Amino acid sequence: MPGSSFGTLFRITTWGESHGRAVGVVLDGCPAELALTEYDIQKELDRRRPGQSRASTQRTEADRVEILSGIFEGKTTGTPISMLIWNRVAAGAVAKKLLQHFGVEVAAFVTELGGIKSRTDSVDLAELRARVEANPIRCPDPNAAMRMMEQLDLVRQEGDSLGGMVTIIARGVPPGLGDPVFDKLDADLAKALMSLGAVKAVEIGAGIGCAGMRGSEMNDPLRMEGGKIGFEGNNAGGILGGISTGMDIVCRIAVKPTPSIAKKQHTVDLAAGMDAEIEIKGRHDPAIPPRMVPVAEAMVAIVLADHLLRQRMSRL
Amino acid sequence: MPGSSFGTLFRITTWGESHGRAVGVVLDGCPAELALTEYDIQKELDRRRPGQSRASTQRTEADRVEILSGIFEGKTTGTPISMLIWNRVAAGAVAKKLLQHFGVEVAAFVTELGGIKSRTDSVDLAELRARVEANPIRCPDPNAAMRMMEQLDLVRQEGDSLGGMVTIIARGVPPGLGDPVFDKLDADLAKALMSLGAVKAVEIGAGIGCAGMRGSEMNDPLRMEGGKIGFEGNNAGGILGGISTGMDIVCRIAVKPTPSIAKKQHTVDLAAGMDAEIEIKGRHDPAIPPRMVPVAEAMVAIVLADHLLRQRMSRL
Amino acid sequence: MPGSSFGTLFRITTWGESHGRAVGVVLDGCPAELALTEYDIQKELDRRRPGQSRASTQRTEADRVEILSGIFEGKTTGTPISMLIWNRVAAGAVAKKLLQHFGVEVAAFVTELGGIKSRTDSVDLAELRARVEANPIRCPDPNAAMRMMEQLDLVRQEGDSLGGMVTIIARGVPPGLGDPVFDKLDADLAKALMSLGAVKAVEIGAGIGCAGMRGSEMNDPLRMEGGKIGFEGNNAGGILGGISTGMDIVCRIAVKPTPSIAKKQHTVDLAAGMDAEIEIKGRHDPAIPPRMVPVAEAMVAIVLADHLLRQRMSRL
Amino acid sequence: MPGSSFGTLFRITTWGESHGRAVGVVLDGCPAELALTEYDIQKELDRRRPGQSRASTQRTEADRVEILSGIFEGKTTGTPISMLIWNRVAAGAVAKKLLQHFGVEVAAFVTELGGIKSRTDSVDLAELRARVEANPIRCPDPNAAMRMMEQLDLVRQEGDSLGGMVTIIARGVPPGLGDPVFDKLDADLAKALMSLGAVKAVEIGAGIGCAGMRGSEMNDPLRMEGGKIGFEGNNAGGILGGISTGMDIVCRIAVKPTPSIAKKQHTVDLAAGMDAEIEIKGRHDPAIPPRMVPVAEAMVAIVLADHLLRQRMSRL
Repeated sequence: MPGSSFGTLFRITTWGESHGRAVGVVLDGCPAELALTEYDIQKELDRRRPGQSRASTQRTEADRVEILSGIFEGKTTGTPISMLIWNRVAAGAVAKKLLQHFGVEVAAFVTELGGIKSRTDSVDLAELRARVEANPIRCPDPNAAMRMMEQLDLVRQEGDSLGGMVTIIARGVPPGLGDPVFDKLDADLAKALMSLGAVKAVEIGAGIGCAGMRGSEMNDPLRMEGGKIGFEGNNAGGILGGISTGMDIVCRIAVKPTPSIAKKQHTVDLAAGMDAEIEIKGRHDPAIPPRMVPVAEAMVAIVLADHLLRQRMSRL
Repeated sequence: MPGSSFGTLFRITTWGESHGRAVGVVLDGCPAELALTEYDIQKELDRRRPGQSRASTQRTEADRVEILSGIFEGKTTGTPISMLIWNRVAAGAVAKKLLQHFGVEVAAFVTELGGIKSRTDSVDLAELRARVEANPIRCPDPNAAMRMMEQLDLVRQEGDSLGGMVTIIARGVPPGLGDPVFDKLDADLAKALMSLGAVKAVEIGAGIGCAGMRGSEMNDPLRMEGGKIGFEGNNAGGILGGISTGMDIVCRIAVKPTPSIAKKQHTVDLAAGMDAEIEIKGRHDPAIPPRMVPVAEAMVAIVLADHLLRQRMSRL
Repeated sequence: MPGSSFGTLFRITTWGESHGRAVGVVLDGCPAELALTEYDIQKELDRRRPGQSRASTQRTEADRVEILSGIFEGKTTGTPISMLIWNRVAAGAVAKKLLQHFGVEVAAFVTELGGIKSRTDSVDLAELRARVEANPIRCPDPNAAMRMMEQLDLVRQEGDSLGGMVTIIARGVPPGLGDPVFDKLDADLAKALMSLGAVKAVEIGAGIGCAGMRGSEMNDPLRMEGGKIGFEGNNAGGILGGISTGMDIVCRIAVKPTPSIAKKQHTVDLAAGMDAEIEIKGRHDPAIPPRMVPVAEAMVAIVLADHLLRQRMSRL
Repeated sequence: MPGSSFGTLFRITTWGESHGRAVGVVLDGCPAELALTEYDIQKELDRRRPGQSRASTQRTEADRVEILSGIFEGKTTGTPISMLIWNRVAAGAVAKKLLQHFGVEVAAFVTELGGIKSRTDSVDLAELRARVEANPIRCPDPNAAMRMMEQLDLVRQEGDSLGGMVTIIARGVPPGLGDPVFDKLDADLAKALMSLGAVKAVEIGAGIGCAGMRGSEMNDPLRMEGGKIGFEGNNAGGILGGISTGMDIVCRIAVKPTPSIAKKQHTVDLAAGMDAEIEIKGRHDPAIPPRMVPVAEAMVAIVLADHLLRQRMSRL
């Protein structure tokens, strides 16, 4: 059943997921006249290896994107953009370009790993992004990042793995995005983020914490600030009633530990029909969250691009 | 922009949300020959007042469902089912009937309120449902329910409100439901549940807890049980890689405290353009989770009904 | 299977077709701020009895439209417009209002009945419409209309019925409407018009006549006219390669004779399993084309409204 | 705007139409376990050069299909089938395999060219197809085919071109296919066939002829034939009220003459802003209908495959 499409106006169809000879994305609904080149997409693909000098990295066949249609002389034509790639991130790169055109920025980073939490001061997104790319954990807090790396080394030696949290922030999102009934903005973000392998929970704003809060703590009061109305606090995470408020959109996802671990585990020997033990060989990445950062950014960007186009559509 | 539809094969279109003269649902894609009457839907609508004798309850105009099309002689005809109602729960009632036809049951209950957590022993769903309907909190643990009620009384007197958690279990779901790419089962459940007003987080299985776990704890090992293969534990919450495993599907949602509280709060006086204080008058329900129980059940049932039909579709 | 929706951005869902207790339309995707009242729709519904003094016509329950949602203080809100009615024409009335906003007019009329063809001089649409409403055949050529009525009386006495042709013209359609691949403008018009009961053929521009033409006759040459480029002739019917050219869009539909006739016909006696003869009693309208005029206008208006919104969407 | 998809359950997305570096089709919704190889598709692509010994034909790069995903060990997997090709016909080949699985056959042929009409005796589809492939005109009547070829030679020398008619027959279609409201079977066929470049009219059954018929001629009476009920005549073309009757589905399309002709034509000199004359150089195919035969077959097969899957879906 048609479940390989995503989005309403900014719509993605993929094929060849992991097992085929190639992996492709057809991106439909991107307006014409958006400046876009293979480089815009390639730079997002290159983010998959955090903390490394990019120049020194040998780029393999699987890492290269090829745009097959939809771009003419460096601009989108308004017809489907077909890309051959090995990372979904590609469609997100187009979404980000579109969002930038409307003044929206998206950034993700690791905020917890193996129980160690980062302290994230409110900084501008450019600095946040610089800090995130400065270490292989993609954690903006250098002290926490160091302790996470130590923890990761320990766990790797034990043949085990770690779970963690990733936070995604979208800044500059205009108020009014989202449909009040079914395609609420938080609902679409929840679907997009839960679509990522290994994600077991999605939070918006105060998230799960709101279960233990009182109304008087949870509500974000309105305040005058320099002659403009703003919210004091952002427990809503930038979304009220399924609609963006204009504040930062803040999502958090819980990422489970890598399931393929070297440690002995219980299983069943299918041939014998008996309980057995298994040891998975090979090198495994003991933590998924750092690799999740560009992917989560891409998913949030795709949802926001779709809703931005939908908002434009609903006006005469 | 068309955002008033939900589902792919089992598809719901609503109109008149809260402000219009009537509220309607058009339900498209329900197969023909399913036994269905207004009573099947009415009994779900009647669940909105927990812990009360139903016989004694005066039913008002707003509580009655009227089926306008799609049913003939007590059975669906396969054409759109149009209903006039005041509660969305109606489409969920049709979904539940369809799920029962395929041996699937869905039940929801309150597991946390104002910081008090219920102990939920694994019981059969019929008993669970009986316990849930036995108290107005809709919590299956009688001791916890009593303490939650006390806490609620206290908070009501202070003019404040409480947040909480609701758990939804689906039993009998066949393995293989869900699309491996975009319409993953957990992603669609996350969207459906995040669509409900006041929900700020959605968890599947171990949920947010997995962020602090190691792979060796998180993985659900396979075990032989009475000659059949089963999972030991259900940290996955019945879904792996976006596909149902055949185990219970377990979702949890964090519900924020009621925002309309009697306590004084900061706000802005729009006319004066100045900071101000507000006291909201009138009686407010100080906790949303008990009312969320039938609604969350409905949303999960709708997602599962859609995916059951989609699974049937994908086979020659 | 979801087949009760029509359109992509300007999307219609209907229910209760002919057999239910009511008939409804939910119209999704109409932009906010369009001036719209029940009267705008009612006047289209009232066109169903051509050539009669409207004042004298008793309006029955079944003829009245009721808007249940989506309009506030005489303007669309951008949320679904739900209407209770007995004629589909209602959604077309909204589409026409939207088209007028963009300077597009649609008019339909009978051009053939029982083999009698009307001569249609190129007149402005306002005059054409006045002529069309002046006789019960809805034929803009008064002489042809008179002969058609005589023919109709004759056939009625014989207990038989007549087929005919209806032409639909859309003026002011901007160039560039239509998708070059699947949702070509002519393809969508063909689907919409073939959806009408009794239609067995759809033509665009030269239509079926082009089968007997040579390229040198068929091609519409470009000409300078008053300093502007225009086409000489309109064999293309305003659409080339699935895209509007800016010329009048001209469609024609062949409408079969009413199947319910009083004349004796062969059939099968199902109980006896034998050949038999049947005479259908009751008064039957011996020609469908006059009633088809407002319906065909509505369908063309709906397709054009959808594509106008889609064109707006595809621009940055 | 998303207009590069076609179909509801059996859904096609294309990209790279004519101008890109490659042309691709992603076919979604084909059930798993259907036997399918590149050869099944290749043989349809090879039909583009009628009346030639296939062995002797040099196959160029542009003629080869490459399946990139969705097939494993000669069977569909149920996931999207992605194909790189230069002819749309490819998706139709998959649809035909699926239809054969359900006992449905589709065949198309030229029935009119340059005013010369073929006489088509009712023969079985296998013989019809043999006759069609026996001459480059793809006309099943050898005498008419010869005269059409002579006419074609004449017109080619004059630098002009010819229009014609193509008939498509689908046999073995079960009764009940099609949605009674919007996605009527005839409406979807009309859209699919009008989507083909150069088609200016679509007829079902008696088609445009019904405009001049009386009800007593048009109606197909029921008759007992060998103990079974059947229709005498097929003016309905196998579709009544938008639903298949079980009789042959018969469609006809009017194909306009090739617009690129060598003859002098009027046009406008854009640089000078003045009327001018143009002579298009190069070899042009003076008639499109023969090449339209495999394409029209493909489109009808795709619509029928989609509706077959939808019919299966609507049953409990």
